[in-house]
Amino acid sequence: MTGAGEFDFIARYFRPLAGREALDLRDDAALIAPRPGHELAISTDTIVENVHFLTDDPPATIAQKLLRVNLSDCAAMGAVPFGYFLNIVRPRRLDDAWFESFSAGLAADQDLFDVRLLGGDTTSTQGPLVLSVTILAWVAQGCALRRDRVQSGDDIWVTGFIGDAALGLRALRGEIPDPDGYLTDRYRVPQPRMGLTLTGIAHAAMDVSDGLIQDCGHLAAESGVGIVVEVGKIPLSPAALILGDEVLGECLTGGDDYELLVACAPACRIQLERESVRSGIKMTRIGHATAENPGGVTVLGRDGAPVGLSSRGWQHF
Amino acid sequence: MTGAGEFDFIARYFRPLAGREALDLRDDAALIAPRPGHELAISTDTIVENVHFLTDDPPATIAQKLLRVNLSDCAAMGAVPFGYFLNIVRPRRLDDAWFESFSAGLAADQDLFDVRLLGGDTTSTQGPLVLSVTILAWVAQGCALRRDRVQSGDDIWVTGFIGDAALGLRALRGEIPDPDGYLTDRYRVPQPRMGLTLTGIAHAAMDVSDGLIQDCGHLAAESGVGIVVEVGKIPLSPAALILGDEVLGECLTGGDDYELLVACAPACRIQLERESVRSGIKMTRIGHATAENPGGVTVLGRDGAPVGLSSRGWQHF
Repeated sequence: MTGAGEFDFIARYFRPLAGREALDLRDDAALIAPRPGHELAISTDTIVENVHFLTDDPPATIAQKLLRVNLSDCAAMGAVPFGYFLNIVRPRRLDDAWFESFSAGLAADQDLFDVRLLGGDTTSTQGPLVLSVTILAWVAQGCALRRDRVQSGDDIWVTGFIGDAALGLRALRGEIPDPDGYLTDRYRVPQPRMGLTLTGIAHAAMDVSDGLIQDCGHLAAESGVGIVVEVGKIPLSPAALILGDEVLGECLTGGDDYELLVACAPACRIQLERESVRSGIKMTRIGHATAENPGGVTVLGRDGAPVGLSSRGWQHF
Repeated sequence: MTGAGEFDFIARYFRPLAGREALDLRDDAALIAPRPGHELAISTDTIVENVHFLTDDPPATIAQKLLRVNLSDCAAMGAVPFGYFLNIVRPRRLDDAWFESFSAGLAADQDLFDVRLLGGDTTSTQGPLVLSVTILAWVAQGCALRRDRVQSGDDIWVTGFIGDAALGLRALRGEIPDPDGYLTDRYRVPQPRMGLTLTGIAHAAMDVSDGLIQDCGHLAAESGVGIVVEVGKIPLSPAALILGDEVLGECLTGGDDYELLVACAPACRIQLERESVRSGIKMTRIGHATAENPGGVTVLGRDGAPVGLSSRGWQHF
């Protein structure tokens, strides 16, 4: 579905981003040759104006967030991304300058993460800007990391810092200070954890997009185990720590972190720590999986007693 | 990016539609095993409320149109679809009954076209409903039908009838009569031409989504040939014919037909006609490709003289 104006638009901003398989974005489909011994991992995520990004966010960081939330899914599967499809539903108010900056943001991240545009679609709307990416990644046959393989007794680890993105959104709304823009940047430009090699070390993984505790719940539910999380062990950034305990609940339940949640047998602890050192990606052990309370998450406070969490804080039961 | 409510929503309406590769729609990605000797053709199309369908269209036909505009791209590549990803950006006003009917429409077409849901994403919006499908199809290595392979001297053929969908949209707006609903149905529920086997017969193909003449222009531009179309040969349905010559320009320039435009050497004419008989899909020879006027389309009137076309009619130069 490509009108004449759409052809020019694609030629100007998107043909330069296209990979070989895209057939120059001129045909009905892209053609992907198989890679022997590998499966194709495919994932898709949509971001919507004023839901996942703000109207005033720089177009380049919107492009980066769009690509990175999808790259994060590849990282969570232990798959190596190579290309993506892009659907743009654009309000007429967005002008050429906007799309120039948007495609420059895509180009920069394409080079950084070694992926290329494979195809897509643009349509107009009278509503908000809607952007979808469908990402393709290779993973060696049978080696994809799944959500449903956590075993009772596994350690639960998380990459990076938790909660910065949720605080960044509040900073953008002017509700909390963010003097050096660190939190804002964490909201706008997630860091997908591509560098980790978890295959052969971890039992299961997923990315943290809905909030740490909720995503622990997903991991627990899919694997049929309970997960115990120790609040005192959860890695908070210096910028979050300075805001004090009052933002802790928000850090544990706020979304958009795009860190990885990893389940790993205690016997593999040293291997995981070595992988953390090798990749330069901080990994923190925050809890463990149990046979009790399958599908449930128990949060232990700093004193070791279970606490209840809400987005407005945390309290002892 | 899946909140708790989204999990229930997916479980209720979409998990029953999921194929094996979808990992039950519970993980970060779907896993596609390679098919030896085949390439994967991947295409994506978005449809937007009040751009590609109307708010009051039945949810089941919206689902069918969504899937079928994508299936049509597979047909145009000579590829056999097996699965698709679905991104839903939904306004809150759409209730459970709406999605029940929508997913029933998907289920019916899944069975008809032998495809399964592989994954997707749902987000909310305060704007119009936006639906994207990314479709996956197998095609034997090197056998995909391309747009850029038309040769000078080729016959140009088209499947089915041209222009019904554009007239159907006008009928829905109450501008023209449609006593038996045939035109409306052609707008709402395209018929992707999956049944044709064109590999080894045709040089090139594409689907007609933007309007016959404009899409002939795309075919001409990609292949570096001129295309001559004879108005008198263009297949119009009985419902279009009864409306008289005043809708002819609209039929030739209106979009949404999802018929196939096929280029084929005159020497293969009988093979193409046999394939038409075998498949039961009407095919009409409407013109030919030339070395002159590369990238251009010449429309010949019933008297053999070139005519100019606009959406409001056609006139002699």
